[in-house]
Amino acid sequence: MSSTLTVIGNYVSPYVRKVLVCLDLKGIDYAIDPIAPFIGNDEFTRLSPLRRVPVLIDGDLVLNDSSVICQYLEDKYPTPSLYPVDIVKRAKARWLEEFADTRLADVLIWRLFYQLAIRRHVFGETTDEAVVQKAREVDIPSALDYLETQLPVDGFVFGELSIADISLACYFRTASFVRYAVDAEKWPRVAALVQRMLALPSFQKLARLEDSMLRLPLAQQREALVAAGAPLTEWTMGCGVPRYGFPRG
Amino acid sequence: MSSTLTVIGNYVSPYVRKVLVCLDLKGIDYAIDPIAPFIGNDEFTRLSPLRRVPVLIDGDLVLNDSSVICQYLEDKYPTPSLYPVDIVKRAKARWLEEFADTRLADVLIWRLFYQLAIRRHVFGETTDEAVVQKAREVDIPSALDYLETQLPVDGFVFGELSIADISLACYFRTASFVRYAVDAEKWPRVAALVQRMLALPSFQKLARLEDSMLRLPLAQQREALVAAGAPLTEWTMGCGVPRYGFPRG
Repeated sequence: MSSTLTVIGNYVSPYVRKVLVCLDLKGIDYAIDPIAPFIGNDEFTRLSPLRRVPVLIDGDLVLNDSSVICQYLEDKYPTPSLYPVDIVKRAKARWLEEFADTRLADVLIWRLFYQLAIRRHVFGETTDEAVVQKAREVDIPSALDYLETQLPVDGFVFGELSIADISLACYFRTASFVRYAVDAEKWPRVAALVQRMLALPSFQKLARLEDSMLRLPLAQQREALVAAGAPLTEWTMGCGVPRYGFPRG
Repeated sequence: MSSTLTVIGNYVSPYVRKVLVCLDLKGIDYAIDPIAPFIGNDEFTRLSPLRRVPVLIDGDLVLNDSSVICQYLEDKYPTPSLYPVDIVKRAKARWLEEFADTRLADVLIWRLFYQLAIRRHVFGETTDEAVVQKAREVDIPSALDYLETQLPVDGFVFGELSIADISLACYFRTASFVRYAVDAEKWPRVAALVQRMLALPSFQKLARLEDSMLRLPLAQQREALVAAGAPLTEWTMGCGVPRYGFPRG
């Protein structure tokens, strides 16, 4: 068995992106075992009991949950550290990660991106416009109002780049696929942090791969990704028409 | 300001219980700022942006999310350690904690306890019997089937007592309030681990407090808890009739 780490996931997922950015920042080689959103065979169910991406495979170890995976990478490959050394800052960073994974995921991904992109283009369903409108007018502003109180004018949230900055940025990137952008007049700190983060080489490398596949039908995505240099393994988790619910992660 | 840690929470919550058990095992004094389930004033919203319990207050630090809080306690008070030293075991322990907080919470708390106890007795609504039936026949068995493959015949999951054992047990304890018990014929490892955990002094101490209040109307719970020795502060988070959604945490 190769010693290269494998990540089961799709470049669209913010949870997958979080892990890939951490891997890149730590200089760790990895391969992606691609899985189309909403698809997964029984082998995927065996590896991911909640049917979520990402899954990390490191030799005999199969690990689920993006937060658990990132903390494992930090423990195993401590340099450069992506968690603050100071205990209080570290706790606050983990909280912002949790806020991103829970609340930003809810308002930006499930109430916006899922409604506008996935329901429409993957399931051929109609967007629930009421959900989208409430997300734009109430839910997202409320989450950003809170974040604005937590972020610095400049630099990263806890001085050094940390899991907090990375996690937050991942959700705004997926939301940008449906042309969502933070209003910098209303939430200047959030807008500036997202801009700083997405300009980092680790996000830029992924953005090139994301852009190469985003507007293509599923059947053409693999070829486009390989052409763009994505480190793909064979599909082993199923491909084709959606069989299960969306792997939330 | 006192140096005693304060936990905002209610003894019914499995998320609160997880933190209280960790505090007890580490020998850390704390006070409970009580909050009735489903209740919370604007000060609570300020301290808990997702309106979830528990909240930990340690001097100037206000911390949310039970997993973030438990990891903070481990970092600040490392002895006795509640996270495996081995990096792979530690990652697996965090995953089981996540599985408990997400999946067990979903099937045991939201689809069972909430339906049978909270909807009926707090909101005066009717239990959705279809949800309860599916929980009993499909959702809970499916979660236990997975857990049974992850647990040992005897002892704790990773040798020493860890956050994995603690987290898992907390959900079964709250489910027991609606008389749910794991079928030891079908899931002997799960049943045995839960039994071992709930027999620990840290769980037993809490059980006495939980039992003192469980069948009482809200208005009488405080007096009963104080009589039973609960370390309650004044109510500062609001009490009375429910104003908001349930603080999930």
